[in-house]
Amino acid sequence: MGRVFNFSAGPATLPEPVLEIAQKELLDFKGTGMSVMEISHRSAAFTEVIEKAEADLRSLMQIPDNYKVLFLQGGASSQFAMVPLNLFSSRKKADYINTGQWSKKAIAEGKRYGNIHIVASSEDKVFNYIPEITKDMFDPEADYVHITTNNTIYGTTFHELPDTGDVPLAADMSSNILGQVYDVTKFGVIYAGAQKNIGPAGMAIVIVREDLIGKALDFTPTMFNYQVHADAGSRYNTPPCFGIYLAGKVFEWLLDLGGVSAIEEINREKASWLYDFLDNSRIFKSTVTGLPRSIMNIPFILPTEELNAKFIMEATATGLTTLKGHRTVGGMRASIYNAMPPEGVKKLVEFMKKFEIDNS
Amino acid sequence: MGRVFNFSAGPATLPEPVLEIAQKELLDFKGTGMSVMEISHRSAAFTEVIEKAEADLRSLMQIPDNYKVLFLQGGASSQFAMVPLNLFSSRKKADYINTGQWSKKAIAEGKRYGNIHIVASSEDKVFNYIPEITKDMFDPEADYVHITTNNTIYGTTFHELPDTGDVPLAADMSSNILGQVYDVTKFGVIYAGAQKNIGPAGMAIVIVREDLIGKALDFTPTMFNYQVHADAGSRYNTPPCFGIYLAGKVFEWLLDLGGVSAIEEINREKASWLYDFLDNSRIFKSTVTGLPRSIMNIPFILPTEELNAKFIMEATATGLTTLKGHRTVGGMRASIYNAMPPEGVKKLVEFMKKFEIDNS
Repeated sequence: MGRVFNFSAGPATLPEPVLEIAQKELLDFKGTGMSVMEISHRSAAFTEVIEKAEADLRSLMQIPDNYKVLFLQGGASSQFAMVPLNLFSSRKKADYINTGQWSKKAIAEGKRYGNIHIVASSEDKVFNYIPEITKDMFDPEADYVHITTNNTIYGTTFHELPDTGDVPLAADMSSNILGQVYDVTKFGVIYAGAQKNIGPAGMAIVIVREDLIGKALDFTPTMFNYQVHADAGSRYNTPPCFGIYLAGKVFEWLLDLGGVSAIEEINREKASWLYDFLDNSRIFKSTVTGLPRSIMNIPFILPTEELNAKFIMEATATGLTTLKGHRTVGGMRASIYNAMPPEGVKKLVEFMKKFEIDNS
Repeated sequence: MGRVFNFSAGPATLPEPVLEIAQKELLDFKGTGMSVMEISHRSAAFTEVIEKAEADLRSLMQIPDNYKVLFLQGGASSQFAMVPLNLFSSRKKADYINTGQWSKKAIAEGKRYGNIHIVASSEDKVFNYIPEITKDMFDPEADYVHITTNNTIYGTTFHELPDTGDVPLAADMSSNILGQVYDVTKFGVIYAGAQKNIGPAGMAIVIVREDLIGKALDFTPTMFNYQVHADAGSRYNTPPCFGIYLAGKVFEWLLDLGGVSAIEEINREKASWLYDFLDNSRIFKSTVTGLPRSIMNIPFILPTEELNAKFIMEATATGLTTLKGHRTVGGMRASIYNAMPPEGVKKLVEFMKKFEIDNS
C-alpha cells in the first residue's frame, strides 16, 4: 500500500522528504561509504551533523546564546526527574500546573525529590480545559514553575504563558515544540521528547538557561546532570546519532518551509478546518471546553461507541490511520503535527463530512 | 564511493543485509504505509517487533526465563549508575575489577553511591593485560562484583569469568555481547550499549536476574529503576523504536548465520589472521601482553608516529577506514565486530603485509 495519512499522537508521522533523504543515504552517508549510524560520534562527519542540527534549531526557535541546547536520551519521562534534580536549590520547592496525564507524571516524579505544590489543576473535568492562572498563585520562593504547554491526550494548550515573575518556568513542550512560536526567553527550561515534532523516538531535546545548570543535587546520576551534557556538547557518551541526524533533516525541512512562524500559520489553518467542521457538525463533537484549543492534537467523539468504532474502521480503510483516541477520553484523536500535510487534514474532514451524511 | 570496510570501535559497522532491509522498508513498514519510526510503540505492529527482538535475543544467548531482558535508553553510561542504584542492599558494598577506561567510569559512578572496593587493576601497565583473579579476593558480603568482559580500547578480554561465589556478577558486555558465547546463568546482570554488536547508538540492552530487581534505592529516578521497565516490557515510556527494530534485524541475521557459537568461530578466525600476522611482523606489534587477547578489538602499533599516521592515511585511501587507535594507546585499532565481514579483515592483513614490505 502507498503512504497513508497517519494521525498517530507519537511516534508520529515524519516529513516524507526527510524519510526519502534518510533512505537514499542510509548505506552511504555523504560519500563516506558508511551509514550515518556507523560513523563515530566524534568523527568530523558527525560533528558537522550535530553542530548543524543545533545551529538550525537555534535559528528556528531563536534560542539566545545564554541557553544550552542538549540532545539527550530517555525521553521526556527522564526530564520529569532531571528538572527537579537539576533545578532544586536547598529549598526543594516547585509549583506545578496539572493539565493532564503527563503533568501528573511530572508531578509524581517531582514529589519524590521535594515539596511540590499543585497551583492549579483541570483534573476535575478530565483535563478538558486549561485552568485560570494568576501571578499571585505562585510561590516566589519556588525553585521553578512547571507546565505542559500542550496536552497531547486532551487537546488543550496554554494560550498565554503564566507570569511566574523571577521564578524560572520549566515546560514540557513535547507535543507542540516547533509547531508554534514561543519566546524562549520566557523559559528557564524547555524539554521535549522527539517523537512528535522533531524526529524518531529515543531522543529528547532540552533547552536550558545557563545559570540554571551546574548545581544538581548530590545523588544525581552523572547521565542526569545537565552540566555534564552541556560541557560535552551532548557527547558525554555516545548520543542517539541517527535520531540527531534525522532531527537535523527535519530542522532543515522546516527552515526551507519558512521556519516556525510559517508552519504555525499552516498548522492553524489545518486545525481550523477540523474545528470549523466539528463546531458545526450534528454528530461529531470536540471534547475540549474553553478556548483556545490545541492546534496539534484534536480529540473528538461521536454519539455512541459503535459509531466511534465504525468511524475508525472506515477511516483506516480509506488510508486515514491511527485515529483512535486515548482511553481516558475515548472516541478519536487527530494529531496533526508539522509533518501532517494539509491534504491529510482535508481528506480527513472530507471523510468526516461523508460519514456524517451516511450516519445521521 | 562504494561501501568501505569500517573498523570503527563504535558506532560501528552494521551488517549490510540489515541496512538494506531497513532502507527498503524505511517509508513503508510491512505494508502499513508508515515507517517503523512513525508507528505507535503500543501498536500491534510494533509489539510484534519488540517481542520478536526479545525472543530472538533470548534464543541467541540462551537467556533463562528467570532473567528479564530490557531495551533501554542512555547507553552503558547510564548503567554505571543503574547497577549500584538497583543492586545495592543497605550494605552498599561492591567489588570492581579495573581493566580499562570504561571500568574506571563504572567505578567512579559506583563510588558516588556506596563503598566500592577495587579488587584488581591493570592500570599500572595502561591496561594491556587482565589481572589474575582468585575467589578469595572477593568480599562475600558485597552486593555484586563488576567486570568489563571486553575492553574496547585496550583489546583485552576475560578468558575465564571470575568465580564470585554467591555474589552476583555484573558485567559491562558492550563490546563483545553476541560476539562470543557466554553462559548467562553465571551473571546477575549483563548490560551492553548497542552501538558495537547490536544496532545503532541510543539503546542499551540489560539482562537481569529477576531476584535482583525491585529493591532500587529510594532516590532512584523512575527511569533508572529496572523494575519499572521490567513491569512495562521496556515500554514504560516511548522506547527507541527504530533501534529496537534494527537490533531485531541484526538478531535475525545472526540466527540465520547459525547463532553466537557460529559467529564466534568466524570471529576467532578473523582475529587469528590479524594476530598471526602481528606476531610475525617485523614492524607491526600488538600492544596487548598476555593471552587471550580480544577477538573484537585489536590495537597495534608501528615503530614511529610517522609510520602510524602514514598507515592510517594509506589504509583509508584504500577503503579500510577508522583505524586510528585510542589516544591512550596510540597507533591503530581494528574493531572487528560480528558485522565486519571476513573479507574486510583479509583485505586489512593484505594491506598490512604490503605496507610492511614498502616500509621496512
